[in-house]
Amino acid sequence: MTDLQAVLDSIHTELQPRIGEGKVADYIPELAKIDPAQFGLSVVTVDGKVYSVGDAAVPFSIQSISKVFMLTLALGKVGEGLWKRVGREPSGNAFNSIVQLEQEAGIPRNPFINAGAIAVADVVLAGHEPREAIGEVLRFVRYLADDETVTIDDKVARSETQTGYRNFALANFMRAYKNIDHPVEHVLGVYFHQCALSMSCEQLARAGLFLAARGANPMTGHSVVSPKRARRINALMLTCGHYDGSGDFAYHVGLPGKSGVGGGIFAVAPGIASIAVWSPGLNRVGNSQLGAVALEMLAGRTGWSVFGD
Amino acid sequence: MTDLQAVLDSIHTELQPRIGEGKVADYIPELAKIDPAQFGLSVVTVDGKVYSVGDAAVPFSIQSISKVFMLTLALGKVGEGLWKRVGREPSGNAFNSIVQLEQEAGIPRNPFINAGAIAVADVVLAGHEPREAIGEVLRFVRYLADDETVTIDDKVARSETQTGYRNFALANFMRAYKNIDHPVEHVLGVYFHQCALSMSCEQLARAGLFLAARGANPMTGHSVVSPKRARRINALMLTCGHYDGSGDFAYHVGLPGKSGVGGGIFAVAPGIASIAVWSPGLNRVGNSQLGAVALEMLAGRTGWSVFGD
Amino acid sequence: MTDLQAVLDSIHTELQPRIGEGKVADYIPELAKIDPAQFGLSVVTVDGKVYSVGDAAVPFSIQSISKVFMLTLALGKVGEGLWKRVGREPSGNAFNSIVQLEQEAGIPRNPFINAGAIAVADVVLAGHEPREAIGEVLRFVRYLADDETVTIDDKVARSETQTGYRNFALANFMRAYKNIDHPVEHVLGVYFHQCALSMSCEQLARAGLFLAARGANPMTGHSVVSPKRARRINALMLTCGHYDGSGDFAYHVGLPGKSGVGGGIFAVAPGIASIAVWSPGLNRVGNSQLGAVALEMLAGRTGWSVFGD
Amino acid sequence: MTDLQAVLDSIHTELQPRIGEGKVADYIPELAKIDPAQFGLSVVTVDGKVYSVGDAAVPFSIQSISKVFMLTLALGKVGEGLWKRVGREPSGNAFNSIVQLEQEAGIPRNPFINAGAIAVADVVLAGHEPREAIGEVLRFVRYLADDETVTIDDKVARSETQTGYRNFALANFMRAYKNIDHPVEHVLGVYFHQCALSMSCEQLARAGLFLAARGANPMTGHSVVSPKRARRINALMLTCGHYDGSGDFAYHVGLPGKSGVGGGIFAVAPGIASIAVWSPGLNRVGNSQLGAVALEMLAGRTGWSVFGD
Repeated sequence: MTDLQAVLDSIHTELQPRIGEGKVADYIPELAKIDPAQFGLSVVTVDGKVYSVGDAAVPFSIQSISKVFMLTLALGKVGEGLWKRVGREPSGNAFNSIVQLEQEAGIPRNPFINAGAIAVADVVLAGHEPREAIGEVLRFVRYLADDETVTIDDKVARSETQTGYRNFALANFMRAYKNIDHPVEHVLGVYFHQCALSMSCEQLARAGLFLAARGANPMTGHSVVSPKRARRINALMLTCGHYDGSGDFAYHVGLPGKSGVGGGIFAVAPGIASIAVWSPGLNRVGNSQLGAVALEMLAGRTGWSVFGD
Repeated sequence: MTDLQAVLDSIHTELQPRIGEGKVADYIPELAKIDPAQFGLSVVTVDGKVYSVGDAAVPFSIQSISKVFMLTLALGKVGEGLWKRVGREPSGNAFNSIVQLEQEAGIPRNPFINAGAIAVADVVLAGHEPREAIGEVLRFVRYLADDETVTIDDKVARSETQTGYRNFALANFMRAYKNIDHPVEHVLGVYFHQCALSMSCEQLARAGLFLAARGANPMTGHSVVSPKRARRINALMLTCGHYDGSGDFAYHVGLPGKSGVGGGIFAVAPGIASIAVWSPGLNRVGNSQLGAVALEMLAGRTGWSVFGD
Repeated sequence: MTDLQAVLDSIHTELQPRIGEGKVADYIPELAKIDPAQFGLSVVTVDGKVYSVGDAAVPFSIQSISKVFMLTLALGKVGEGLWKRVGREPSGNAFNSIVQLEQEAGIPRNPFINAGAIAVADVVLAGHEPREAIGEVLRFVRYLADDETVTIDDKVARSETQTGYRNFALANFMRAYKNIDHPVEHVLGVYFHQCALSMSCEQLARAGLFLAARGANPMTGHSVVSPKRARRINALMLTCGHYDGSGDFAYHVGLPGKSGVGGGIFAVAPGIASIAVWSPGLNRVGNSQLGAVALEMLAGRTGWSVFGD
Repeated sequence: MTDLQAVLDSIHTELQPRIGEGKVADYIPELAKIDPAQFGLSVVTVDGKVYSVGDAAVPFSIQSISKVFMLTLALGKVGEGLWKRVGREPSGNAFNSIVQLEQEAGIPRNPFINAGAIAVADVVLAGHEPREAIGEVLRFVRYLADDETVTIDDKVARSETQTGYRNFALANFMRAYKNIDHPVEHVLGVYFHQCALSMSCEQLARAGLFLAARGANPMTGHSVVSPKRARRINALMLTCGHYDGSGDFAYHVGLPGKSGVGGGIFAVAPGIASIAVWSPGLNRVGNSQLGAVALEMLAGRTGWSVFGD
């Protein structure tokens, strides 16, 4: 599929003058230091071909994209019982909102808002010391990406630990409703470290390829989840993956996807390919500005939208 | 595709013992009279074949499913300018909630919650007397379905006019924010009549086929919208089509769809088929109970989920 | 008490340079025409003496102050049973908010927010045609003020009928919850006419004197309510009389009071006097700007605050 | 005033059969152990006379009543500047609600809901180590009560530290909005210890007498606040002192007051007396059930309501 590389090249070329647009996340001090003038895009097709442009090999902080891997891990541990702890509906509120938690007795709306992801981290933590759980998360992501060089950036994790007051509020609030079982510091220890996973677009696209390929990574042969679970995780990404910008992302891009404040977006074209894009400047709702534009161009030019070609 | 008929037959057979489950909508007196023990299902493929089981030829009140046709009509009139009047995000609230309207200055979250659909009706009404607008809506749906026998059930419209206090509240509230231009009685006149459209599963599946087929109805050759707009309407249905049950529907069924309290659900398998199911008993969140189950079975057996096979 | 007149004169003199401050209510077109450079203040003591300064004899639209008289009337009709229909707590929201209504099943927080006053008007309407109920309200206020010249300004009532969309929203919303028994147009007919009562400061202070004097008007000998009910109405005015500015009014003035968007404020010094002040310019939260200042000066100089001298 | 003792005795006698009613607070394990069958009532008049019945000399956990003393202390430190950090309006929500904080950018509605009191504790903490601040609070309350035997119950403080997740959530949430300056653990250290102040009805009534007596304790001659500030603190107690039951308390009792989940209520009859009542069983909204009844009886029989006799 030579023309896929051509599509990526054309996107890169057209976006070149806009690289640096948007505003780098500054609420986590360590992230505020990133040079905004970076852009990478990788596509891995289900037949194992890799297409990349720009800074696709530069590692960045995947932040909330990690919630997809954590959800996968938690579903593996407790299965559909997870949904007693967290909902599956779009929240209609910002990613760090606490209002809904109070109105719905401490059950977060979905696993991709912060509260939901913290509840998921609590599930992953069960039976472990925090260090062990963090180790398990790292091993799992390395296994998915088939790449032992994936790391966690401790400086980012520490930076967020020191300033993540809202996340401490969310976790304590859920603990008050007994929807967090472990000490808040332990749960957030896992949460802040998963968010600090540092991966390149290529690593990320490989790691998520199983979601495009009926639950198994065709490059490694590793079976990760059942085809049904892969579909369901994709459904959750589509309805909830971009917080209160999820409807807009579906409208413009039409692919299941998950964004992170580090400027990355991971997306899935079911049956076709997994995609990772990175550009640190964020738009008004906290998603990568050029990342979203690039994905809209990609979906438009390939006809990969799940809503029709 | 003989086996598609077999799939429908197997669904019908398996659901037979459950027909009558759920609770018929009772807040509109005229709807409360419907016999719950009915079930119909139709699939129309993009190559023009029609597959049906059960009461697929019995007309029922399509209610909120009409919002899909009205959105199509309004986008045709004012284009993307429509989004100044209504958002594109899941609401996180019930279909008739007014809370969000107050918090967001009279702009409804999306065109499929009641407030949003009323704003859309206001757009369709522009330049018309209410009677004319209702006539235009009816003609448009007959044109889409290629069937002049589609009607509006005046008794249902009248029943809702007399009891639809919450809709009067929503419309007046938006009028206070100048997001309704016409007299509230006129706008709701259109709205209550569109909801009272009476169609069978077969008519409904035909009328919506353009959304599965790049915007044009392959049976009639009528071009309704551009491929891009068809995709976008599908995206809106997937993220917002089942109110605060949208996430759940995406998780279980994986198809863009729109439900109505008359017990109908319209769904789209992009590039493949349009689907209409009807069973009057509703589940806890107000969607057809057996309808949702039938669609989950259908998507599971055909591999039509947009999130992977 | 000659020095009370001196206190009023000193307040008038000191406020002279500021007369005209604030912003005249403009959401009711008829009110927007009022000359803002007016200021009147009347005090009627429980021994029947009347003290006035400025435009104390000029009639103005009492608007929400009428809610105090309507509450009195409704309690006379249905007694404490009224509290099944409306609460007694500060709302924490704006006077015309609908959010709380949805969260609390159509029961308004208190009788002084718009929703609550509309429910009260519905109670007063029971057993009457709207015209009759409006006549009863007018007769009641004339009786309280012992003044047959009190009128209702039909132009103001009509102006509000044509633009009061939020009130139509509130009434319809409560009707949906069966907390309004009569047709919405009838209830709002009463409500808009009570708000259009036109009274001078002197008339208003006389009409409310019973609340300062154990429930009976010492000037006429008319017994209106029991001492206990007088206390309770005063309590409601103190906690809820200035919407989401009630805490601030209690903090600065320390008297039970009720404001109206016509620029009037009615206040009570229990056991001592009733007070009416009028100045059309409103502050940020919709209460008379100079009216509130004048009352703070009056309470400060007389030691009438209920919270200590 | 012999008959005041008779009034207290009659209240005690009449309530005798009901002693033990209500439900002891159980969310703080240490408080759940209290014997509910206790009842004490003390009145201290501004001329220094003390009247008591029942268990008026038994110390109990004053809990949120401490917020009155902390507010006094904080106003002494930063004056009216305090109101940049916390509002003065009734909240319309439960005492431990976080919803309003999110909607109003981390500024609590008033100093008597938990969030507001935590912000006040942060102000009191300024320039101190937590231990020192707790010492200062204890010295201040001993000074007010003129009684060196007042203590803090460390077991209660510890119990609340271990289970007060919602307060940790509130504090972290405000810290995210930069409305808490010190480490959350330090601020809550102060907060949990102030709540654990252990005082009898007699001690409490003495300690708050300054609020009934123009800001100075007539028994000791200590001037605590100006007459104006005493009035204002009383106003805040009346509008906000019983959380979302404040309107009801004003309606039935008619005195400024502050309740605590330990079953105590402190109230003020301005210019006349300060009052403390204690009975551990709580009503539905978390205020002492018999305490509120006793105060209603007291105000009714003495004519002390601020809203008229």
